[in-house]
Amino acid sequence: MQGFWYPRTETGRASLLPAPPWHYSGDLLTVEYRTDPARVAELLPAPLELAPQDPGAVALIWADWQSCGDSGEELLDPVRAQYRECFAVVRCTYNGTVYSRCVYIWVDKDFALVRGQYQGYPKKLGSIHQTRPHPFGRAAPRIAPGGRLAGTLAAADRRLAQAVVTLRSECESNGFVNGHPMAHHRWLPSIEKDRPDVLAELIKSGSAHVEAGPAWGGDATLDLFDSPTEELARLEVREIIGGYYRQVGVSWDGGKVLA
Amino acid sequence: MQGFWYPRTETGRASLLPAPPWHYSGDLLTVEYRTDPARVAELLPAPLELAPQDPGAVALIWADWQSCGDSGEELLDPVRAQYRECFAVVRCTYNGTVYSRCVYIWVDKDFALVRGQYQGYPKKLGSIHQTRPHPFGRAAPRIAPGGRLAGTLAAADRRLAQAVVTLRSECESNGFVNGHPMAHHRWLPSIEKDRPDVLAELIKSGSAHVEAGPAWGGDATLDLFDSPTEELARLEVREIIGGYYRQVGVSWDGGKVLA
Amino acid sequence: MQGFWYPRTETGRASLLPAPPWHYSGDLLTVEYRTDPARVAELLPAPLELAPQDPGAVALIWADWQSCGDSGEELLDPVRAQYRECFAVVRCTYNGTVYSRCVYIWVDKDFALVRGQYQGYPKKLGSIHQTRPHPFGRAAPRIAPGGRLAGTLAAADRRLAQAVVTLRSECESNGFVNGHPMAHHRWLPSIEKDRPDVLAELIKSGSAHVEAGPAWGGDATLDLFDSPTEELARLEVREIIGGYYRQVGVSWDGGKVLA
Amino acid sequence: MQGFWYPRTETGRASLLPAPPWHYSGDLLTVEYRTDPARVAELLPAPLELAPQDPGAVALIWADWQSCGDSGEELLDPVRAQYRECFAVVRCTYNGTVYSRCVYIWVDKDFALVRGQYQGYPKKLGSIHQTRPHPFGRAAPRIAPGGRLAGTLAAADRRLAQAVVTLRSECESNGFVNGHPMAHHRWLPSIEKDRPDVLAELIKSGSAHVEAGPAWGGDATLDLFDSPTEELARLEVREIIGGYYRQVGVSWDGGKVLA
Repeated sequence: MQGFWYPRTETGRASLLPAPPWHYSGDLLTVEYRTDPARVAELLPAPLELAPQDPGAVALIWADWQSCGDSGEELLDPVRAQYRECFAVVRCTYNGTVYSRCVYIWVDKDFALVRGQYQGYPKKLGSIHQTRPHPFGRAAPRIAPGGRLAGTLAAADRRLAQAVVTLRSECESNGFVNGHPMAHHRWLPSIEKDRPDVLAELIKSGSAHVEAGPAWGGDATLDLFDSPTEELARLEVREIIGGYYRQVGVSWDGGKVLA
Repeated sequence: MQGFWYPRTETGRASLLPAPPWHYSGDLLTVEYRTDPARVAELLPAPLELAPQDPGAVALIWADWQSCGDSGEELLDPVRAQYRECFAVVRCTYNGTVYSRCVYIWVDKDFALVRGQYQGYPKKLGSIHQTRPHPFGRAAPRIAPGGRLAGTLAAADRRLAQAVVTLRSECESNGFVNGHPMAHHRWLPSIEKDRPDVLAELIKSGSAHVEAGPAWGGDATLDLFDSPTEELARLEVREIIGGYYRQVGVSWDGGKVLA
Repeated sequence: MQGFWYPRTETGRASLLPAPPWHYSGDLLTVEYRTDPARVAELLPAPLELAPQDPGAVALIWADWQSCGDSGEELLDPVRAQYRECFAVVRCTYNGTVYSRCVYIWVDKDFALVRGQYQGYPKKLGSIHQTRPHPFGRAAPRIAPGGRLAGTLAAADRRLAQAVVTLRSECESNGFVNGHPMAHHRWLPSIEKDRPDVLAELIKSGSAHVEAGPAWGGDATLDLFDSPTEELARLEVREIIGGYYRQVGVSWDGGKVLA
Repeated sequence: MQGFWYPRTETGRASLLPAPPWHYSGDLLTVEYRTDPARVAELLPAPLELAPQDPGAVALIWADWQSCGDSGEELLDPVRAQYRECFAVVRCTYNGTVYSRCVYIWVDKDFALVRGQYQGYPKKLGSIHQTRPHPFGRAAPRIAPGGRLAGTLAAADRRLAQAVVTLRSECESNGFVNGHPMAHHRWLPSIEKDRPDVLAELIKSGSAHVEAGPAWGGDATLDLFDSPTEELARLEVREIIGGYYRQVGVSWDGGKVLA
C-alpha cells in the first residue's frame, strides 16, 4: 500500500499528504507578550520545564501560507496549497536545552491539520484572517513605518483573538519565542478503553532550510476572548513585548525522537 | 496533562475530542453497487483478503449527523455537534471472519476528521449534501414510495460523486456491505526520515449500541468523477444493487486490536 | 434576455434565481421576547408606526430550510436547495393595519441572500446552526416535553446570538410576532453620487400557501452579543415571552406595492 | 434611516456597505482568449452590439482583493476586507462607443456580492483560488520569466474554470478586453407577478483612480467546465490571446446612467 498518509492505496495518489520534504512560502504577523509563567508551566508535561529566562513569554503568530510537496504540483491547483494559521508558542527546557513549543494552533485546511498533528502540533480548524500589505491603492498598508496590520482568529463561530501591529522600523528578528527547535509530544490514544496511549513520544523538529526578508518591528495590541472549548485566553496578556512582520520561505524534512 | 486529544492541558477543556463513548443520531442515504473485485482487492493490505461472496460489492453512504460525548453539551452549541459525511465501504476477510472496511471518507468538521483518523477512517474534508425528507411543503420528498433523495460529494472544489435514490418500499435492511464490524488500519509514520511507521496496527471496532427506524429501499443512480487527488472513481460502477434510506442512533465505545 | 435574476442570458439557465413561485420546507425555532419599544420604533421609517399592542415584542427565528422553484430540480442537487437563516422580526402599523417586518436577517447561501433582498429582507451572510430533533440515539432531543433545542448565529467571525428552547407542550401557534403579512422596503441607491434612491417602495408580501405540523412551546433563554458591524444586540432582551418549535411548508408567489 | 445598503437603521452602523468611494488593492491574473462572436452577441441586450474589432475576445480574470470604504476600518478586521473573485468580461458598443461588460462573476463574500449587484455585476458566490507569487521559499513562483500562476473557480461544488499563466516578460498592459468603462444593466424585477421590471437601466462606470505595477505577460492555458446552472463554458475557448499578471490599486466612486 502506497501513500504517506491516509487513505493508503495501491498507487498512493489519494494520500492526503505527500512524503516530506514540505515547502512553505508565506507572511508572518507576530505579537509577543508576557503572561503569568504559571500558565505556561501548566502546558509543559514533565520532564519539560519553564525556560530559565523570560519564562512567561508567549508568541501569537498569524501566517498566510502556500505549501507544497517536492513536486510542487499543489501550486498549480492553489486550493490545495493555500492555508492560513494562527498559533501560540511558548518556550521550555528539556535536558538543559531551550526549545519552542506550540501549545495551541488553528488552520483552515485539512492537509495542514493532519500534517501538523503528525508533527505534534495540536491543530484545530479555525477562521484566520491577516491584513495583507500591498504596494498600490488605499485598501492595504505599505511595509513602511506606520503601516498597520491586523490578525483575527475564530473557531466554532466565536472570535478568539485579534491583534493590530503598527510597524515602526526594520529590526533584527521577528521575535525570539519561536526561534528554537520545536519540542512536541506525539500522543495517540489506544483504540481499546482504559489502556495507555499507544504512542507518547517527545520529538524535536525544525526547519531544514529557511530564507527570509527583512524583519519589521513595531507596537502591538492583542485581545484574547474566552470560549467554552478553548483555553488560549488563559494565557492572559500581562505586557506586550512587540509586534513583527516578516516574509519567509521554509522547508521541513523530518525530526528526531527525543524520548 | 488532561484531554483525550490535542491540545492537552491542565484542565482538558480545550481537547478537540472528549473521551468515548461518542453518540450519533442521523440519517443515512446508501447506494450499493458492484465494481471490479480487483479494484477492491487493491485496497486490502495483506493479510486482508476479498470477502468470499460478492467481493466487488461497495456501499457509498451519505450521513447527516449530530454527535456528542457523554455530557451531550455539544447539542446546545450545534456548530460543535453537526457534521456531514460521505464514505465508501467494502468488505474483507481476516482470519476467516468477514469485516466491513471504510476505504474513502470525507467529512466537513475538524472533530469528525480527527475522531475518524483515531479510528482508522481515512478522513479528508469535503463538501457533502444530502436531500432531507420533510413532512410539509413542496421543497422536500416524503419518506414514501416515489420519494427521491440525492447525495452529492465534492472535495478541493471538484465534484466527486452524486447519487439519486428513489424510494420504493420498506425493506429488511439498508444494505449489507456496511453491516459487519469494521477492520481498519491505524498507521502513523515516524517523525524520522526513512524509518518504518511507528504504529501499524489492525483494529476492529463496531457500535456499542444501535437503534434504527424502518429501512427503505429503492432504485438508485450513481455517478463518480475523477480528480487528480482522489481514487474513488477507480471503484467504478458496474451494476447498481440498490438504494436505501434509514434513520439511526448509534454509540461507539472503543475497539480491539486484531494484529 | 432570459432569467429572473442576474446573470441574464439567452437561455436563462445561469440565472441565480428561477421566477416565483418559490417553495420552502423547514423547521423553525423561535424565541419571542420584549425589548424597549423605542428600539423597535428606531427601525420603522415613517409612515410606519409601532404596533398598538405589545409594541416592543421581537421574534428571533432560526430556520433550517430546503427551497426550490416550481421545477423542484434543486432538490436533486441539494447544495442548491439547503440553507439556514436567523432573523429578527418586529411588528408595525401602516394605514391602520398591523404588519410583521424583518429588521435583521442572516443566511448562508447566495440564492437565499439575493432572493431575500429582492423581497426587501436585509440579508447578510452568516453562520447559522440549529439543533435538529431526531427519533433515535443520544445525540438529539426528541420533540417531547423536556426536549432542548439550541440556535446560534455568527457573522464576520463573531457570535451574535445564542438561544436554548426547552419544550414543554404543544400549543396553538409558534408565536405571534411573525404572524402578519410582511411590510418591507425595497431600496436601491442611484448609481450616481448624491442622487436619491432610484427605488424606495413599501411592499407587502406573505405566503401563498402554508401547511404546518403541531406547534410546540416552552421556556427559552437568549443571549445577544455586540459587534462593530451589527445592531441586533441593540434590541436588548427585557423579558422572554416564550420559545417555540414547528415544522412548516410554505410557498411564496409575489407581493403588492403599498406605497 | 441611515445606511447606504440594507439593513438601514437609525445609526447606519449595521449597513452591509458604506457609501462610496470604495477602495481596492489587489492582484489580477488574466487570461484573454477568442470565442465565437455569436456567443458574445447572445449576452448583449439591444441596443448593445458587438465591438467592431476582435468581437469574440473574452477576458477571464482572477482577483485577490482587499477593499474598504473611506474610513479604512475594514483593514483592521480583515475578514471584512478580503475577498476573491473570478469574472468574465467582453466588449460591446453603445452609441458608437466601445465599453467593457462583465457577463459572469463569482465572489466569496457577501459585501462583494451585494456591492457588485448594485453596480450591475451579475455576482454569485463561488470558491476562487489564485497562486500567490512570493519572494522566498519553494512554495511560490517569483514574478520573473518562467513563473507559473494558476487560477481556479468553483461554484455549487463543481469546478467551472482553471487556468495556468506562465510569465514571459513585462509588457504594456494586462490585456485590452477589460480596458474600457463598464456598460452594465441594473435590473430589478417587480415584487408583483407579471409586471415589468421596476428598474432596467443601462449605466456606465469606471475607476475614479487607478495605480498599478508593471504588467507581466506570458503563455496561458484555460479549461472551462460545464454545469447545470452555469453558462461560462458556452464562451468556449477557440484561441488563447495571452496571460497576464498585475498588481493594482483602484478606487470607485459612482457611475452614470446611459439609458
